[in-house]
Amino acid sequence: MSSGRILVAQGGGPTAVINQSLVGVVLEARRFQAVTRVYGARHGVRGIVDEDFLDLTQETSHNLELVAGTPSSALGSTRDKPDLAYCQEIFRVLRAHEIEHFFYIGGNDSSDTVRIVAEQAQAAGYPLRAIHIPKTIDNDLVGNDHTPGYPSAARFVAQAFAGANLDNAALPGIYVGVVMGRHAGFLTAASALGKKFADDGPHLIYLPERTFDIDAFLRDVKATHERLGRCVVAVSEGIHDASGTPMVVKLAQQVEHDAHGNVQLSGTGALADLLCEEIKSKLKIKRVRGDTFGYLQRSFVGCVSDVDAREAREVGEKAVQFAMWGEPQGLGSGSVAIQRTGFYSADYALLPLDAVAGKTRTMEDHFIADSGTDITDAFRLYLRPLLGTGMPDAYRLRGVPVPRIGG
Amino acid sequence: MSSGRILVAQGGGPTAVINQSLVGVVLEARRFQAVTRVYGARHGVRGIVDEDFLDLTQETSHNLELVAGTPSSALGSTRDKPDLAYCQEIFRVLRAHEIEHFFYIGGNDSSDTVRIVAEQAQAAGYPLRAIHIPKTIDNDLVGNDHTPGYPSAARFVAQAFAGANLDNAALPGIYVGVVMGRHAGFLTAASALGKKFADDGPHLIYLPERTFDIDAFLRDVKATHERLGRCVVAVSEGIHDASGTPMVVKLAQQVEHDAHGNVQLSGTGALADLLCEEIKSKLKIKRVRGDTFGYLQRSFVGCVSDVDAREAREVGEKAVQFAMWGEPQGLGSGSVAIQRTGFYSADYALLPLDAVAGKTRTMEDHFIADSGTDITDAFRLYLRPLLGTGMPDAYRLRGVPVPRIGG
Repeated sequence: MSSGRILVAQGGGPTAVINQSLVGVVLEARRFQAVTRVYGARHGVRGIVDEDFLDLTQETSHNLELVAGTPSSALGSTRDKPDLAYCQEIFRVLRAHEIEHFFYIGGNDSSDTVRIVAEQAQAAGYPLRAIHIPKTIDNDLVGNDHTPGYPSAARFVAQAFAGANLDNAALPGIYVGVVMGRHAGFLTAASALGKKFADDGPHLIYLPERTFDIDAFLRDVKATHERLGRCVVAVSEGIHDASGTPMVVKLAQQVEHDAHGNVQLSGTGALADLLCEEIKSKLKIKRVRGDTFGYLQRSFVGCVSDVDAREAREVGEKAVQFAMWGEPQGLGSGSVAIQRTGFYSADYALLPLDAVAGKTRTMEDHFIADSGTDITDAFRLYLRPLLGTGMPDAYRLRGVPVPRIGG
Repeated sequence: MSSGRILVAQGGGPTAVINQSLVGVVLEARRFQAVTRVYGARHGVRGIVDEDFLDLTQETSHNLELVAGTPSSALGSTRDKPDLAYCQEIFRVLRAHEIEHFFYIGGNDSSDTVRIVAEQAQAAGYPLRAIHIPKTIDNDLVGNDHTPGYPSAARFVAQAFAGANLDNAALPGIYVGVVMGRHAGFLTAASALGKKFADDGPHLIYLPERTFDIDAFLRDVKATHERLGRCVVAVSEGIHDASGTPMVVKLAQQVEHDAHGNVQLSGTGALADLLCEEIKSKLKIKRVRGDTFGYLQRSFVGCVSDVDAREAREVGEKAVQFAMWGEPQGLGSGSVAIQRTGFYSADYALLPLDAVAGKTRTMEDHFIADSGTDITDAFRLYLRPLLGTGMPDAYRLRGVPVPRIGG
């Protein structure tokens, strides 16, 4: 290490704890005497090619701690998905600034960017260590027990469904809650962690790992409604038919000239509304309500898993340690991964970038019940410790009935 | 008091703290030696006419305390709005069970039910004391400084917008969040309490107390987007044009054959989606996202104002005290109201039922900025103490820029 300059950036969708990782990098890097400057690129890779850097060496430790506890990406983020030319431009700027350690906090796409940039450096004989730091509420990175950001979003979803279930019990009817997750159902499955009593909802859970059939869906809802007088349903935004066509597209096509004919999956209430319409029209049930959790589930301030916050901090710290103490030139690059070592404890490994980049993890079969509309105890055991301490709990009256007088 | 039997019930939409009021009634009533039985009607007035009662005298104090901390109506609720015949039936059941104290926790409609039942008893010379206990997340009861349930829902909305603002700053674009409140904008206005820095959103707030004009809306959004490169908007579900037509109906009509042509205001994402469509098509802005907070804002488990919880408990306790120590026969009936006595402290009064029943409070003019798209410091001072302790706070990097090298 000669220049002593390191660069950190944040990419993709923000999470509740992504700033823990940022601050983990900055504070850990500042402990190394050889580090002279810690730069942060604004708005991810976009800020690198635009040379839009902040000098994080000049932030107080105190303010960094407060920023660590603030959700969303403090440096700003980007949806840019760099191609080869873009990556070459990133490398050019890194070299111009004599940056020898590059840390990129992000999901699948970000790890692929890090991989290509590291290859560029190696090909040019430039001594860059490029480290991908995981984050994604989707929990879809391979090689990780779970990813920072997922536990806090999962906690939001669990608490939301715990409340929706209580509301639905008070004013019975059908409730459909649509949860983020295009290919991986981990976040939707977290809805089950809000259940306590045997008749609590969500009573049905629809994941993108299973084919969605609208007739089976209506049959399931009808049966639950007949059994309990109500039904709470958790649906992934990514549910699709056997051909892979997203249900939001398919249902919208059935409605003539619908304004939702061609919409993004997130940031719209279309899927919830269309499913509710189906239930109302086909099952003739009156009280049917749908919510789309939307951006609340990843940005809500005040719903953080302390386990998640701690681990997000550590992946940042470990990234710096791997970079500083790792193998020489090039081989020090990699992707930090969380590995489970106890019930519950975790440790961190540095995986080769090509073991993670561009790959998508989905829910393992043993996490999904045979019915296809529920999760297993294995999943419950997997997720519960990640949600952290202080999870709210729901209580009900034991309810001794008073004899009727009648007449 | 002869029979020593009292009855309590919960009506209308659940809140985060409505069980505090229930438990306040039960525990306070059980302190009176003259009280022999505390009954709870399941699902509000519906449970009265169905004689579906629970004996709350047989609940443990311990479990009651845990239920008090659980959101939503533990007895169940109803949307039934009793007419005269329904109220006569309520009175008939109360008399059959020799119930001499009736407590109904609810909003406008519930207070009107209590009023009619009290009149029935008085006309029949039956010694009933009927007390309305306030709750509503809409904050639209007259005679109250504020209503139990509103502060916790307001806290959810403030925290949600604090997060949405951070998310929008990280990935700039337009964000529209639709908040409950058909006639009163109090809950939508709470979005402003999530702001900290001068350029934080929500940048625009649209309340049902002001006429909504789509062209002015688009101008405002465009101007904010040009100024800040982004825009966060808070919109009440009840916004309407000059004729009083809800915007969700009006916008849906403009879209040919739209599936949302005839929808309820809550439980659908239509308004957010339609406003986003307008912004996309008219302003040609690419990244436009809408969220409808839906049932999350009233049922989310884990977002409670401690001030709200305390006051909700006290309105229940005070209701029993007013009933037990109040004026004789009939005149002891009334509606419990919260009155502000300091910055911040509150006390409780018993108002005549006809001073509250069937009336709707909307936001006072001095709470709304002249622009019509913001709130005033008077509102900020009004709401802040109600949100309680431990509100999350947002921090940002101070951001010392690094000189560009260029080339």
